[in-house]
Amino acid sequence: MTNEEELQVADYLLKKLFPINRSITGEGLRLTLNILKKYIPLEIEEVKSGTKVNNWTVPKEWKLNEAYIEDSSGKKIIDAKNNNLHVINYSTSVDKTVSLDELKKYIHTRPDIPDAIPYITSYYKNTYGFCMSQNQLDSLKEDNYHMYIDSKHFDGSLNYGHLLVKGESDKEILISTYVCHPSMANNELSGPICSTLIYNRLKNRQNRFSYRFIFCPETIGSITYLSKYGKIMKEKTYTGFILTCIGGDFPLCLKLSKKNNAPINIVYKALRNNEFKTKPFDPRSGSDERQYCSPGYNLPVGQISKGLNPNYPYYHTSLDNLDFITAEQLIKSVEQVMTLIDAIELDGYYVNKNPYGEVKLDKYNLYPTINDISDMERTIQKQTTNKILLVLNYSDGKTPLSYLSEQYRIGLMEFKPIIDILKKYDLIEGPFLERRELE
Amino acid sequence: MTNEEELQVADYLLKKLFPINRSITGEGLRLTLNILKKYIPLEIEEVKSGTKVNNWTVPKEWKLNEAYIEDSSGKKIIDAKNNNLHVINYSTSVDKTVSLDELKKYIHTRPDIPDAIPYITSYYKNTYGFCMSQNQLDSLKEDNYHMYIDSKHFDGSLNYGHLLVKGESDKEILISTYVCHPSMANNELSGPICSTLIYNRLKNRQNRFSYRFIFCPETIGSITYLSKYGKIMKEKTYTGFILTCIGGDFPLCLKLSKKNNAPINIVYKALRNNEFKTKPFDPRSGSDERQYCSPGYNLPVGQISKGLNPNYPYYHTSLDNLDFITAEQLIKSVEQVMTLIDAIELDGYYVNKNPYGEVKLDKYNLYPTINDISDMERTIQKQTTNKILLVLNYSDGKTPLSYLSEQYRIGLMEFKPIIDILKKYDLIEGPFLERRELE
Amino acid sequence: MTNEEELQVADYLLKKLFPINRSITGEGLRLTLNILKKYIPLEIEEVKSGTKVNNWTVPKEWKLNEAYIEDSSGKKIIDAKNNNLHVINYSTSVDKTVSLDELKKYIHTRPDIPDAIPYITSYYKNTYGFCMSQNQLDSLKEDNYHMYIDSKHFDGSLNYGHLLVKGESDKEILISTYVCHPSMANNELSGPICSTLIYNRLKNRQNRFSYRFIFCPETIGSITYLSKYGKIMKEKTYTGFILTCIGGDFPLCLKLSKKNNAPINIVYKALRNNEFKTKPFDPRSGSDERQYCSPGYNLPVGQISKGLNPNYPYYHTSLDNLDFITAEQLIKSVEQVMTLIDAIELDGYYVNKNPYGEVKLDKYNLYPTINDISDMERTIQKQTTNKILLVLNYSDGKTPLSYLSEQYRIGLMEFKPIIDILKKYDLIEGPFLERRELE
Repeated sequence: MTNEEELQVADYLLKKLFPINRSITGEGLRLTLNILKKYIPLEIEEVKSGTKVNNWTVPKEWKLNEAYIEDSSGKKIIDAKNNNLHVINYSTSVDKTVSLDELKKYIHTRPDIPDAIPYITSYYKNTYGFCMSQNQLDSLKEDNYHMYIDSKHFDGSLNYGHLLVKGESDKEILISTYVCHPSMANNELSGPICSTLIYNRLKNRQNRFSYRFIFCPETIGSITYLSKYGKIMKEKTYTGFILTCIGGDFPLCLKLSKKNNAPINIVYKALRNNEFKTKPFDPRSGSDERQYCSPGYNLPVGQISKGLNPNYPYYHTSLDNLDFITAEQLIKSVEQVMTLIDAIELDGYYVNKNPYGEVKLDKYNLYPTINDISDMERTIQKQTTNKILLVLNYSDGKTPLSYLSEQYRIGLMEFKPIIDILKKYDLIEGPFLERRELE
Repeated sequence: MTNEEELQVADYLLKKLFPINRSITGEGLRLTLNILKKYIPLEIEEVKSGTKVNNWTVPKEWKLNEAYIEDSSGKKIIDAKNNNLHVINYSTSVDKTVSLDELKKYIHTRPDIPDAIPYITSYYKNTYGFCMSQNQLDSLKEDNYHMYIDSKHFDGSLNYGHLLVKGESDKEILISTYVCHPSMANNELSGPICSTLIYNRLKNRQNRFSYRFIFCPETIGSITYLSKYGKIMKEKTYTGFILTCIGGDFPLCLKLSKKNNAPINIVYKALRNNEFKTKPFDPRSGSDERQYCSPGYNLPVGQISKGLNPNYPYYHTSLDNLDFITAEQLIKSVEQVMTLIDAIELDGYYVNKNPYGEVKLDKYNLYPTINDISDMERTIQKQTTNKILLVLNYSDGKTPLSYLSEQYRIGLMEFKPIIDILKKYDLIEGPFLERRELE
Repeated sequence: MTNEEELQVADYLLKKLFPINRSITGEGLRLTLNILKKYIPLEIEEVKSGTKVNNWTVPKEWKLNEAYIEDSSGKKIIDAKNNNLHVINYSTSVDKTVSLDELKKYIHTRPDIPDAIPYITSYYKNTYGFCMSQNQLDSLKEDNYHMYIDSKHFDGSLNYGHLLVKGESDKEILISTYVCHPSMANNELSGPICSTLIYNRLKNRQNRFSYRFIFCPETIGSITYLSKYGKIMKEKTYTGFILTCIGGDFPLCLKLSKKNNAPINIVYKALRNNEFKTKPFDPRSGSDERQYCSPGYNLPVGQISKGLNPNYPYYHTSLDNLDFITAEQLIKSVEQVMTLIDAIELDGYYVNKNPYGEVKLDKYNLYPTINDISDMERTIQKQTTNKILLVLNYSDGKTPLSYLSEQYRIGLMEFKPIIDILKKYDLIEGPFLERRELE
């Protein structure tokens, strides 16, 4: 895809997917996966309600037919048709007329953002309820109100999509995102859309690693996936990340993997990009890294989002809408994540094929001369030679390239052209995943 | 014992033990051990003078019959009957009349605390001498003074008492204290009295570890003990501490074990109590940790006292008396040391029995609901759930509980109720002493 | 040698060696080695031009017969006879009359130090050229100038000298210095002269380690040496250093070895001399450590010079002359390096022969008494006893002596008299190179 095409796809998917009433199961989820299939050939699987998945059970499927509140004059004061967030996700049915005081017990608001409708779920506790803005609640008069929800919980299935892009190695980079939130833009259309575009960047090039893409409902989806594929992922996963809340005008942020020495932790730091932030691993909050990094799996993966705090002001409200994020921001996120991916591909152990003494660089025209060149040219030559000397000295099969970034304060990607030159002249081998002895 | 009983015992022992003329051998030492036996069933052993104990030899027993100085009028200006500190501990005999100038060669004072009698010993160098306050020395007039000491050094024995409280494991916590100082309160009645009370707290409860109590004379006593029991202690000792100078109004202080990774070092820090101080291991000064941490044994034990500097102003003087420490202070020290003991019992490796993905906490009512509860209740529920998520995520058989204290800045004992809940629902196993694989 | 003799030798060698036109091959190099032989019995080897040495080839030998520029009146404006630096080292021949503008293309100056002649080389790129001061260049008038260089490149050889001083162990300390720079004092007569004096200090005493001295041309010389002796050096080298630019009134500076745990790094720090500086290892600049620390050898050696930055103002110019450094400075450097050598000899693992409990120090008169000695004497006794307690406690076969310097902030050489006392009384064994178990 050209940049222009990427922008068009991002824009199309934002508008197409936003209105859908997604949940952790059901038609909205299936529709979302099928729309994404147009741009990423996901294999979509289904797991029946009631299936045991680790410590959990796949829940019944939920279908919402109608949900509204009307006043005594028959006027619908809220209707899920207008905004999916007006009804608690996974609500049971109700058909009951109550006083204003009684009604208030079933209404959720966000007093701190009085014009926002909150997003509330109750997947595992049978209950019903409505959400509206605090402003609207304050405007309600004493009256009799008719609460009406027509929904169904039934034995159905849970769906997810996945895909493997094969690389030179069968070691995998995990890219996981979730697709269960209804009618919110950053959380959660940014993740699936960026993942889709990243797939399109990777599919046509030669990659060192394989890439496993997962699009699933949050928590129960990744648990379900892990119960089937967790063992193979434990064996194959080199590193990876969950992509979530990746839109908006915030700095990129890595929630570190629980494993301190996970490649994602090391390489992200080695980029030495001051605008890239990190936050520590913490199982008390977050997304599917809580499952992937649970003690039985403990995959070396992190979570990538934008903003140090996922609870940006409009998090989990109706104001996280298509005004809040733009297709341009998503393309920028794709660029940033691709830099990280390129750095993961670049890092590793290199081996100097002439490790005894320095390589005689002037044989390859890699040494600055005293010839008649400009100061600028000489400076550039010198800088290049210096990086070559660094890489050759540390290509000992025991020192990862990222160590040089740390030790010599040089962004990892600055070594990319150096590695290319040295491989062109057959002076080094690598990158290797494991340490190796010099010959 | 109730708190009231503890106070009474502490008070009784302080008053009963203070006047006794203890030394590293002899009647005073035996009497002290026998008085303590009333509250702790120590097994008292004896080792004959002349016995080789590692690089040392058990010295002759010392018996002081009488010691005084009288002036030419026959007035006793000092008399050991009035204060045991007036004579150098282990003094030889003397019966000699001398001028004031000559007398001064045999008098020790503390010019910096002019009303204190210093405590001086000369166990291994045959000598005699007296101690008095600087004020008294300054008041002496030119005269002939009669120095008189009637003491005996003879083949006798050295005594110590010890006791093992058996726990689930035969791995032992060492609690060692010394009983050789005469007529000083903090140094050294606080140690034996607190140890006695700690024994009484431990004896009637189920303990994970066994507890080895040692009451011995300092240095030669622990060396003698180690020469007999050192090999078994090296095998069994999990951690432990010497208790000394534990009275007074000072903060608790751990002199770290020489072994950096000794449980006492780690757990003490994990308590995250800002009022608990530490000081580094140092073999140049201190108490019996110098023997227990000598290179041949190197037990993972520290030393617990009060005050960063053991040389509180009245250290080793007659002013370290019953006005200087109180029974209440000793009970407070017992409470603090018991917290440390409870933390040692709590720390270790835990294993999550459902390690694949998060545990579904609402199955056990351990997840906050959206039900109608107060904000306060929800906050408490959320905090508890958060700690549960932490403990479950790190119960991987490889991460000690104390790591969570460090990493997430939560005092170790705050996890006690969490561990209790999780064990109640059979969600975790542990604590284990060693790392273990998940199933 | 007495100090006086050392000064005389340093002075003699400075004056004798300074005028010689050295290069990486040739008569000047051979003459230099032969003059040094008077004071250090180097074995001088030669390697033929064209010999493959690792990734390099020994170059043709260079012989300069004559080099000057004369103006149209026949006046020689510069002549290599007056200063070897006037001609680019390894220049090809030229015999050509040119305009001032054309001449300038072949003239190198240092505009930042307008009265200095720069030192320029072109060993591997066939070219010719001249060096003069910027002041002189500025004073040249429009004229026709005759550039004349008569030099020869021919199949000859490269020479180096080396020597092994045998010690108790066949583990070696490397002392390497280079001898290829013409007519500069600090860089590079200071290195060979100090190395020569160090040899004379070591030769007549009993050393724990063996010492390998290398005097070679820089870069190609050490590569040539390594191609022959690198394998044995990899096996034998315990630690060591390159000595270069060791004159002048600057602080001693260690460029750390690439191996973090190299003894030179550890011991240098353990000296705790605030006037001794360090700089990190870096393969982008420096001297022969770039060869010794190349990945195939990676010897645990550093580089010792004076000044944090080797580019002192007069570096590689005619002002680095005999006014810039003095024989006295060289003797001071020798003293400092000898301290470092003595510390390397002292450090290691010691074993306490009585490791169970403390040693009874009064048996050896190593414990302060309460006898009638002055406060000063008692303080000195106490400090000695304290250091004895430290050394005995840590003589566990697992803790190097240098750890005590770090942990207790005591300069390593302060332990020398302590070690001597403890060995005199047969209380410790060591130093050992490897950890060992206590008996």
